[in-house]
Amino acid sequence: MSKLRCQISISLDGFAAGANQNEENPLGEGGERLHEWAFPLAAWRESHGKPGGEVNESTRIVDESRANIGASVMGRNMFGPVGGGRWGDEQWMGWWGEDPPYHHPVFILTHHPRDPVEMEGGTTFYFVTDGIESALEQAREAAGGKDVMLWGGADVVQQYLAAALLDELELHVVPVLLGDGARLFDNLEDAGVQLEQVRAVEAPGVTHLKYSVVR
Amino acid sequence: MSKLRCQISISLDGFAAGANQNEENPLGEGGERLHEWAFPLAAWRESHGKPGGEVNESTRIVDESRANIGASVMGRNMFGPVGGGRWGDEQWMGWWGEDPPYHHPVFILTHHPRDPVEMEGGTTFYFVTDGIESALEQAREAAGGKDVMLWGGADVVQQYLAAALLDELELHVVPVLLGDGARLFDNLEDAGVQLEQVRAVEAPGVTHLKYSVVR
Repeated sequence: MSKLRCQISISLDGFAAGANQNEENPLGEGGERLHEWAFPLAAWRESHGKPGGEVNESTRIVDESRANIGASVMGRNMFGPVGGGRWGDEQWMGWWGEDPPYHHPVFILTHHPRDPVEMEGGTTFYFVTDGIESALEQAREAAGGKDVMLWGGADVVQQYLAAALLDELELHVVPVLLGDGARLFDNLEDAGVQLEQVRAVEAPGVTHLKYSVVR
Repeated sequence: MSKLRCQISISLDGFAAGANQNEENPLGEGGERLHEWAFPLAAWRESHGKPGGEVNESTRIVDESRANIGASVMGRNMFGPVGGGRWGDEQWMGWWGEDPPYHHPVFILTHHPRDPVEMEGGTTFYFVTDGIESALEQAREAAGGKDVMLWGGADVVQQYLAAALLDELELHVVPVLLGDGARLFDNLEDAGVQLEQVRAVEAPGVTHLKYSVVR
């Protein structure tokens, strides 16, 4: 059965993005520090069309996170600026340039209908306006038996967790205290989410914690 | 130089105790789940005067956490019930019975002066009413060159972190979402705390994450 998997970087105090996310600073204040562990990796650079880079204990985590993924789901703020200033602008094609690092269909949760956008390298953005279940169904169908990756943000992960639709959650825990921002585990008091620890991997500047969600 | 070290169990969503801590439920709602990884261990049972138990990847973490410790500091809620109902009762000797698992001097932060209490097995409780710096100074002197262990709760860890007095922090991260309670990393927005990841150890039902605090 095709799984819904999520992998997301968080600060040690639990934030998936910093405070005051906006068009100039989509990751929020200090948010880029959550991803610094990945930037030097050859595995990360390759998927973003860049040569060179390091190999370390994080490499197999990144490789594994991309293996057997046939489609993605993400929240609107991962595609366009918070506040949506550019959503009316049909020229806005996401943060990633002409050849986004997904290379498969990406379903974006939004309230703004828009025609699909086909990018270079196999990525097509679809805009889903009828909810998280619909986005997951469409992504599963597009994935053709492979797994679906859920990219965030925090609010979207919470919605899938609360709806008991997430199968696997891998956290990249970074030794940073942001103090404020988008808390990953929030609004879940009554959701009864149960997790099982799958593994923990220590790597330079980050620890990868993988959990399965108990149904 | 003698270090101030802290080791504390937290839920994956960052709570060191559950909601509604009180005399009947000192760990708060669901709080006992934070410590279940330790209870089966021979290393834990031995320090609590119990025979038998398991050996697993957590054993060396527990052993190490006790090595080279000459004294402890803890918040008042770790010694007596929240609300302090029993603080007036000079018969209250803490949660641990006649032979507490510390076996060294323990300095308790409180606003209620009380004479020191000598227990069996080498534990003596001292009650410190003049602040965290004083408690640490007294503990360092009592430790005779060994390290000092800071036990919590969350509010006390925050105070030592904010005052740049903590050297080492080991988190036992448990795959539980409590949703509410005493958040470990709170009230630190302006403290500028910087951490370096020292190591991560996967063990049954818990991951041990160790950090040093950058001065």
